[in-house]
Amino acid sequence: MRVLRLVNGNPHGSVEATDRGLAYGDGIFRTLLVRGGRPLNWKHHLARLVADGGTLGLPVPEPELLRREIATVAPGDALVKIVLTRGASGRGYAFAADASPTRLVMAFPVPASSATYAAEGVAVRRCALVLSEQPRLAGAKHLNRLESVLARSEWTDPAIREGLLGDARGHVIEATAANVFIARDGALATPDLSRSGVAGAQRARVLALARDAGIGCALRDIGWDEFLAADEVFLTNSVIGLWPVARLGERRWSPGPLARRFQAGIEEDDARAP
Amino acid sequence: MRVLRLVNGNPHGSVEATDRGLAYGDGIFRTLLVRGGRPLNWKHHLARLVADGGTLGLPVPEPELLRREIATVAPGDALVKIVLTRGASGRGYAFAADASPTRLVMAFPVPASSATYAAEGVAVRRCALVLSEQPRLAGAKHLNRLESVLARSEWTDPAIREGLLGDARGHVIEATAANVFIARDGALATPDLSRSGVAGAQRARVLALARDAGIGCALRDIGWDEFLAADEVFLTNSVIGLWPVARLGERRWSPGPLARRFQAGIEEDDARAP
Repeated sequence: MRVLRLVNGNPHGSVEATDRGLAYGDGIFRTLLVRGGRPLNWKHHLARLVADGGTLGLPVPEPELLRREIATVAPGDALVKIVLTRGASGRGYAFAADASPTRLVMAFPVPASSATYAAEGVAVRRCALVLSEQPRLAGAKHLNRLESVLARSEWTDPAIREGLLGDARGHVIEATAANVFIARDGALATPDLSRSGVAGAQRARVLALARDAGIGCALRDIGWDEFLAADEVFLTNSVIGLWPVARLGERRWSPGPLARRFQAGIEEDDARAP
Repeated sequence: MRVLRLVNGNPHGSVEATDRGLAYGDGIFRTLLVRGGRPLNWKHHLARLVADGGTLGLPVPEPELLRREIATVAPGDALVKIVLTRGASGRGYAFAADASPTRLVMAFPVPASSATYAAEGVAVRRCALVLSEQPRLAGAKHLNRLESVLARSEWTDPAIREGLLGDARGHVIEATAANVFIARDGALATPDLSRSGVAGAQRARVLALARDAGIGCALRDIGWDEFLAADEVFLTNSVIGLWPVARLGERRWSPGPLARRFQAGIEEDDARAP
C-alpha cells in the first residue's frame, strides 16, 4: 500500500522504538478526508485535536504547520491520518513536562466505498464487548483502542458494515469506528460520551448543522430499547460521512429525512471547505 | 540513554509508522531484569507473555528466540523490555488473521534504586484516577496504558515512590507500576484482577512462593479500609522486586515478616535462575 508520510516533518523519519505512543498509547489521532489537497471538516478536526490534546496534556502543533504537512503528503485526494504522541522517552510512566512530542502525518488511498451504503443504509450488529467507563479519557480519540480492536474482531461478514457498542449500564454508546444518532418523532439524540466512547469530528459537525438548522440534538443516555424504537438511526464518521442504519438483527429501517438532510449538509459544507 | 535494541531481530530495524502497536496499542509487553545475561523470573514472564498473547489473540515467539535476543541486547546486567505487537497494517481496526507481528527486544541500563526502599519500605499515595473495568483485557500487560500514565502524572514528589489505584467499587487494585499484597494476622491477600489491573510476573512468583511455602494467598476484592487495617502491605514488580509500604498518608507500617520472607524467596529464586 502506498503511504506517504512525514515524521516530525521528515519524509525519511521513523518512529523511535521507545516512543510513548507505542509504549503506552500515549497520544491522540485523527483520520480525515482530503479532497484536492483540502482537508474536509478541518474546523472540527482541529477543535477535536485541541480538546483531546488537553485531555492528555499534549501540545498540539500550529494549524498552519499541520495544513502544510497535509498538503505535502496529500496534494490530491487522500485519507490522511494525523498521530500526535508524547514522543520518545526512557522507561516508566512518568514523563517530563518538556517532553518532545512526535508528529505523524500519513496519507492513504481513499478507501473504496459503495455509494449504496449512504443511499440505502447499512446492516449493523451489536457487539458482545462492553465498553469500559473512564471519564478522564472519554470522548478523546486517543491511542488506547484495544476495545475497538476486540469489538471489530467479533465479525468477518462483509455484509455487516459496523458493530454497535454499549456500556455496562445498558446504553448504546457508539459503533466501533463511528458515532451514532437516533431520531424519533423528529427529535434527534446522540449518546452522551462523558464516560465512554470517542467524540468524532463528523459527530461535531452534525451537531453544529443541527444547531444551525434549529433542530437541536440531545446529548444523553440512550438505552437499547429506545435505539430499536427510533424512527431513524444513522452513523457518522469522517470517512464514511453519514450512513443510515438499515438493519440490526430483525429490526429494519428506511433512510429517514434527518439522515438525508445531514448528508446534504455535510456535502455542502465539504464543498465550501477553505 | 544507551539502548540496544532489536526490531524483529534486526539491530538496524525500525518500527513502521503504521504499526498497530502505535496506532491502537494493539500489543503486549514485559519489563524484566537481566543479570549476567540471564533473564530473572523468566518462567513467570514467559507464562504471562503466553497468557497475555492469548488475551489479544497474538502469537508469542518461541522462548528460545526470545532468550537469544535478550542475550544479544543484554549480555551483562540490564533492564530488558519486550514488546509484541500485531504488526504493521493498513488502516482500520480489523486485522488479518495472518498479520505479521512486530517483536521488539530492548535493553536499558538497570535503574538506580536505593536499597533503603526494600529495607525500610516506601511512602505511597492514593491516586485520584479511578481504574476502569474491562474483563476482556484485565490482567494483561497490554499497550493501552493511558490510565497508568495519567495516574503517574498526579505527583512529582520523589519521596513518594508509588501511587495506589482503585476501582469505582471501592477496591484497591494495584499501584501504577506494581502489584499490591496485604497481610493481616498472617493471612495474605492480593487484589482480584479479573476486572481491572495488570497481573505482573513478580506477583505470579510471589503467589508461587506462597503456595510452595504452604502460606496461601487469597485473590479477592480488597477495600481501602481493609488495606489500611492490614498488618503488612507490600508492592511487587520485576524491577523493584518487593518493597514494603511504610506510609500512606497518616498510616505508617514497619516491614513485616511476610515481606522479608518473600524478599528472601525472590533472591534465592533469582540466584537459581537458569
